[in-house]
Amino acid sequence: MTTGIHHSSPTAVSVVGLGLMGRALAQALLRAGHHVTVWNRTPAKAAALVADGARLAPSAGAALRSADLTILCLTDDEAVRGLLGQDGVVLAGTTLVNLTSAGSAQARETARWAEQRGARYLDGAIMAVPPAIGTAEAVILHSGPRTDFEAHEPTLAALGTVTYLGDDPGLASLYDAAGLTMMWSVLNAWLHGTAMLRAAGVDAASYAPFAQQIAVGVAGWLPGYAEQVDRGSFPAEVSALETDARAMSHLLHESAALGVSTELPRLFKALADRAIAAGHGSEQYPVLIEEFGRPTP
Amino acid sequence: MTTGIHHSSPTAVSVVGLGLMGRALAQALLRAGHHVTVWNRTPAKAAALVADGARLAPSAGAALRSADLTILCLTDDEAVRGLLGQDGVVLAGTTLVNLTSAGSAQARETARWAEQRGARYLDGAIMAVPPAIGTAEAVILHSGPRTDFEAHEPTLAALGTVTYLGDDPGLASLYDAAGLTMMWSVLNAWLHGTAMLRAAGVDAASYAPFAQQIAVGVAGWLPGYAEQVDRGSFPAEVSALETDARAMSHLLHESAALGVSTELPRLFKALADRAIAAGHGSEQYPVLIEEFGRPTP
Repeated sequence: MTTGIHHSSPTAVSVVGLGLMGRALAQALLRAGHHVTVWNRTPAKAAALVADGARLAPSAGAALRSADLTILCLTDDEAVRGLLGQDGVVLAGTTLVNLTSAGSAQARETARWAEQRGARYLDGAIMAVPPAIGTAEAVILHSGPRTDFEAHEPTLAALGTVTYLGDDPGLASLYDAAGLTMMWSVLNAWLHGTAMLRAAGVDAASYAPFAQQIAVGVAGWLPGYAEQVDRGSFPAEVSALETDARAMSHLLHESAALGVSTELPRLFKALADRAIAAGHGSEQYPVLIEEFGRPTP
Repeated sequence: MTTGIHHSSPTAVSVVGLGLMGRALAQALLRAGHHVTVWNRTPAKAAALVADGARLAPSAGAALRSADLTILCLTDDEAVRGLLGQDGVVLAGTTLVNLTSAGSAQARETARWAEQRGARYLDGAIMAVPPAIGTAEAVILHSGPRTDFEAHEPTLAALGTVTYLGDDPGLASLYDAAGLTMMWSVLNAWLHGTAMLRAAGVDAASYAPFAQQIAVGVAGWLPGYAEQVDRGSFPAEVSALETDARAMSHLLHESAALGVSTELPRLFKALADRAIAAGHGSEQYPVLIEEFGRPTP
């Protein structure tokens, strides 16, 4: 379920943690017309927000008390539990949306911790930089109890494109990590290709649209390939892994001959060679899920 | 310059080399109404094509003589020069489009070799599997003299989506290699993410649309990032490399904790760490072009 930016009836929202991201979240909520309370260990960070209409709470506990919904954006989940575990902070009856970056195990632990203390808890992950917050380009992932997400979705939609992933509070963190893997992979592949083409005197601007076209085209195969993964069956409908491996060898030699990095081709080939050694040479590329799904040898 | 599938006035075209790909090329030319001559060392491979209207030449030299345009699709460029260097093969006055897979240095060498013997020569690379040939999905890259490409573009367009890259005959091979780098990178990133999500019980089909969306989104950044590469200036407009590196550490730990491969996160981090050690931590991701543009240490 994904919701774009829209305005909803004003809600009392607190934002706890006013780093660059926390301030951007509070500003977006103010712009959407919500009643925003903020708290930060260093109150000076709140000055611009207060000038724009936010109320500065005297304590984190007070920030939680005055809100229907509290958004947490701290350094890490230990800081969240440290702050909210203090005397005088009552979690019972509050709703927390924790947008602090954390691993999936930590997110589940914080969810249990908060729920044991009577809070409703959603975990979130922000796939955006602070200046994008409040625009549709800011993708914000949420996981936890669906009813809590649905209750607060109209308010959360002020922050960006809001997506709900499922009950497991670890999901937002996992999708975020998987998305970053895709991001760095596309960027690295583009940089490798750019380096190869520059060795032949082609500038980056000439190559980039081609790289974009290939990435978009291959991305379009993923839903179909996912069905092979879910079935656990990888017939070589398009091409066999051993054909890929031969082309990987050519890429490795070409990269070395051009004097550019060979790290990507070597990794491609190492993965394919392991799958071929395991007997999958006549199957199709997604059979490599078996290599990705086990610890690195 | 990119041209989609369309029909042109019939041309006399020869196809030399009738492996799976050569046969698909000849079939597409027959379907487009061209006068097709074929040759293969093992003539039996031509049977179905002859039944569909192709003429079987008695020798490679005869195939070249009877055509305005000869498409070569052999094992490698050594096979091309071996075959066309035989007594009785006259290259002077012919036009060759060499779609044999080869590295860029080999493509340039074959171009020189053919031009010294009086042939016009285009090098090409097929970014498609045989069943796609003759459809718009088959991207076929060409490089060499522009006038030769333009003269034969209407005929070549029968094979797929035909793109011209520039005079350097090595370009088709280089773009192909760069495109494969993008292809394997997107697939690997998707598989890594799929493995992470499967560890949390999410099936591949549920995750794939998200992976697709991220890949398409990041691909859209490439033209803008390419301008940074061409300027050699990488101000941290969006985020600094050291911020990426911290998130890479989290990804590495998360992957290890989930029991999936850590190879991609380790590679990401190794590249970023080298660039940070070289003093680029406060610059933006495309500064890694410097790492990709030099031989692997």
